Amino acid sequence: MTNFCSIDDVDDPVGWIQSAVELKKKIEQDGPFTKNGKSVCLLFFNPSLRTRLSMQKASFNLGIESFIFNLNTEGWQLEFGDGVVMNGNTSEHIIEAAGVMSSYFDAIGIRAFASLSNKQEDYQEKILSQFVKHCSVPVINMESATSHPLQSFADMITIEEYKKVDKPRVVLSWAPHPKALPQAVANSFLNWSNRMDYDLVLTHPKGYELDPGIVGNATVEYDQNKAFDGADFIYTKNWSAFNDESYGQVVSQDPTWTITPEKMALTNAAKFMHCLPIRRNVIATDGVLDHESSIVIAQANHRITSAQAVLQKLLNVK
Amino acid sequence: MTNFCSIDDVDDPVGWIQSAVELKKKIEQDGPFTKNGKSVCLLFFNPSLRTRLSMQKASFNLGIESFIFNLNTEGWQLEFGDGVVMNGNTSEHIIEAAGVMSSYFDAIGIRAFASLSNKQEDYQEKILSQFVKHCSVPVINMESATSHPLQSFADMITIEEYKKVDKPRVVLSWAPHPKALPQAVANSFLNWSNRMDYDLVLTHPKGYELDPGIVGNATVEYDQNKAFDGADFIYTKNWSAFNDESYGQVVSQDPTWTITPEKMALTNAAKFMHCLPIRRNVIATDGVLDHESSIVIAQANHRITSAQAVLQKLLNVK
Amino acid sequence: MTNFCSIDDVDDPVGWIQSAVELKKKIEQDGPFTKNGKSVCLLFFNPSLRTRLSMQKASFNLGIESFIFNLNTEGWQLEFGDGVVMNGNTSEHIIEAAGVMSSYFDAIGIRAFASLSNKQEDYQEKILSQFVKHCSVPVINMESATSHPLQSFADMITIEEYKKVDKPRVVLSWAPHPKALPQAVANSFLNWSNRMDYDLVLTHPKGYELDPGIVGNATVEYDQNKAFDGADFIYTKNWSAFNDESYGQVVSQDPTWTITPEKMALTNAAKFMHCLPIRRNVIATDGVLDHESSIVIAQANHRITSAQAVLQKLLNVK
Repeated sequence: MTNFCSIDDVDDPVGWIQSAVELKKKIEQDGPFTKNGKSVCLLFFNPSLRTRLSMQKASFNLGIESFIFNLNTEGWQLEFGDGVVMNGNTSEHIIEAAGVMSSYFDAIGIRAFASLSNKQEDYQEKILSQFVKHCSVPVINMESATSHPLQSFADMITIEEYKKVDKPRVVLSWAPHPKALPQAVANSFLNWSNRMDYDLVLTHPKGYELDPGIVGNATVEYDQNKAFDGADFIYTKNWSAFNDESYGQVVSQDPTWTITPEKMALTNAAKFMHCLPIRRNVIATDGVLDHESSIVIAQANHRITSAQAVLQKLLNVK
Repeated sequence: MTNFCSIDDVDDPVGWIQSAVELKKKIEQDGPFTKNGKSVCLLFFNPSLRTRLSMQKASFNLGIESFIFNLNTEGWQLEFGDGVVMNGNTSEHIIEAAGVMSSYFDAIGIRAFASLSNKQEDYQEKILSQFVKHCSVPVINMESATSHPLQSFADMITIEEYKKVDKPRVVLSWAPHPKALPQAVANSFLNWSNRMDYDLVLTHPKGYELDPGIVGNATVEYDQNKAFDGADFIYTKNWSAFNDESYGQVVSQDPTWTITPEKMALTNAAKFMHCLPIRRNVIATDGVLDHESSIVIAQANHRITSAQAVLQKLLNVK
Repeated sequence: MTNFCSIDDVDDPVGWIQSAVELKKKIEQDGPFTKNGKSVCLLFFNPSLRTRLSMQKASFNLGIESFIFNLNTEGWQLEFGDGVVMNGNTSEHIIEAAGVMSSYFDAIGIRAFASLSNKQEDYQEKILSQFVKHCSVPVINMESATSHPLQSFADMITIEEYKKVDKPRVVLSWAPHPKALPQAVANSFLNWSNRMDYDLVLTHPKGYELDPGIVGNATVEYDQNKAFDGADFIYTKNWSAFNDESYGQVVSQDPTWTITPEKMALTNAAKFMHCLPIRRNVIATDGVLDHESSIVIAQANHRITSAQAVLQKLLNVK
């Protein structure tokens, strides 16, 4: 494996989940690995809590030194365009930045959200793809414009841990949010769960259709109540519109889509999941989040599980 | 001990001081502890120099990995209210943030200053108390709305090191400052020194009275010169008004309260102390700070001494 | 050696280069040193990519713990004036800040750019010199107002590695830039290369003359084409005017000074060097940077080589 940028870099999701869980148990029993001299640089174009802290903790657990670099506050603006005359606001080209960092570190993590203003650039992964192109060491996607595979890997680990039937009914439900959010988490969740043996259902209001190529084999159900019927897992997430006409916009804040205990009662005692941060009483009510069926903290903890599995594979740590 | 949030978490201040000094000597002789696999997250809502660096150095000395997280620049705004519909500026509730970080780290340090605009919220320790409530690992107060026990612990270690009589006369003196500052350092200094065998005197202009429950057995003396008479230690600090009418306001900048060599001459060759940062020629003149009786650097160095004692106890490092 | 602030702290540049290369090879073969209990604090008043990351990586390679402190975002404004009544925007005096940090760490790195508004203050190294004065541990210049010796040390290591003749012709060429930049890199490059056995040429438009005391034995040639004739190394850098009349100003953006393949063709197959970050198609065209004669990435990598040599000497790491 050369990079961890999307599901396409994962040959065997089920095998990865198993080895991630084994690695987690090994570290719980034996403690962190001793330092192996390897190091990783974690680059943030956007804010982060879980991704930042879980990547640092995972590195620590594996004996890898992690270095944080916040480009916006600690560095300067990078240029991603080819052939640009750089007499404007950008001070360094990705070619040099990636080249230098590749020569310093054994891997580079990048967090760079969607612009939500230019669909083509977002879905071409303008920033991430330039890092991949110009880095000579493995690149780790710490949430890009259109995907967040470290999150989805953690999500699958969580579902496998909590599932009570071989083929659970897994429902990805849109929920309202006051601000326009990327589709990255929803996209990756669909990418990964399509590779698992799940009865996968996607539910959202009209206007929130996602990329059909990503939706894959998921059943699209516009009636949220019907979607929840018999569900084993409710995975909730807001995203802004994907269609060309209203790309990146909030086209509905319909409060009837908020997850409530009443809606959870429609399910097969489903576990409630969300990638966090979650806006309480907007995405889901306190009654849902404070109920024992919510597994959002365990899910967030598996961000360490997935991060250390990825780091181990990419950096060949033993 | 489950947390280190205030003097109430300290059963035996004198015993703590002794063991902190022993630990400091041990580390000076033997060097830092080897890594023990434990880790602590240090959360900053406000700027910091000594607290940040001494906590990192203390962690390093104890073989504990420390991770910094600056919420304002690296994360997003947290919600502390119960039952709030989070459709405004806050992106994550303390319940989730504390839950997740508790699952990642062995302890969590928090720095969250007083608002100085809402006395009730400040003195109910709105932020710190919510972290304590929702964290499942020890919480360390790195200066909260109303107290700064790591500072006061260091202050007591310093006084014990420099005192020449069994029961020194210790004077806490207000001094002027152009901006409104919290009462946290003064409060904690009173809390701790009330637990020691000191002849404790508090002096400040009218209008700067502190919480009587915190003042405790200290003698309040409005005449600064009288207060300084025979003092063994002058501990200076500015704070804004505590009374309901002018809470959090600057009600005086009286320059006659600035500490000068002339005032120090009234004392029993007192040592000069301040928590730093200190505004020279406002709080105290150059002549005071550059005199050999100033022990502010030694005092600041004991921030490592107190921090590593607290970390050792909370994380049970051996 | 007590500090690493300028070429004046370096007794034997050639010997330093040799031992830096040996240390680099040793670490490549044997891996990072084991932790030695030493620690360094890296203070940033200005943004940084290579300096920050190379100092962290170099510290890691030597078993030294590094702690980052961004004063502007994580701390507060320091006062550098003597005797100032600090009732304005500065919260802490350098005397206390340097004293405290000296008591916490084994060395302190400082990055503080030129103001470009006060030539006298810049060339008196107002900030760096105050740190040197008030720190009781070694101070490392991570780019000050007028010099950047870690960069120049790396530059010399690079030239020694790539030179094909005993006494190469080394050309420092000004190039245009939209913003006013300090003279620090150019100054240090001249300082260091004057100490080497080079045929040293300095070329720039009229109005960009540098301090004659720094130019030293370099030949000044106003015709860039003539300067490039027979060159073995082209070192490019922009700087703003040094003369009193237009200090710190952009007095020309003449695009004919941009480095192009045509200009490189005038040289003796010269290697192209720049300290980075570089504005493509302003300082040098893509054709120059993407050509095999560009060694800017190798040069940037030697920032680790120079940083770890300096840290080893200053902290006496074995």
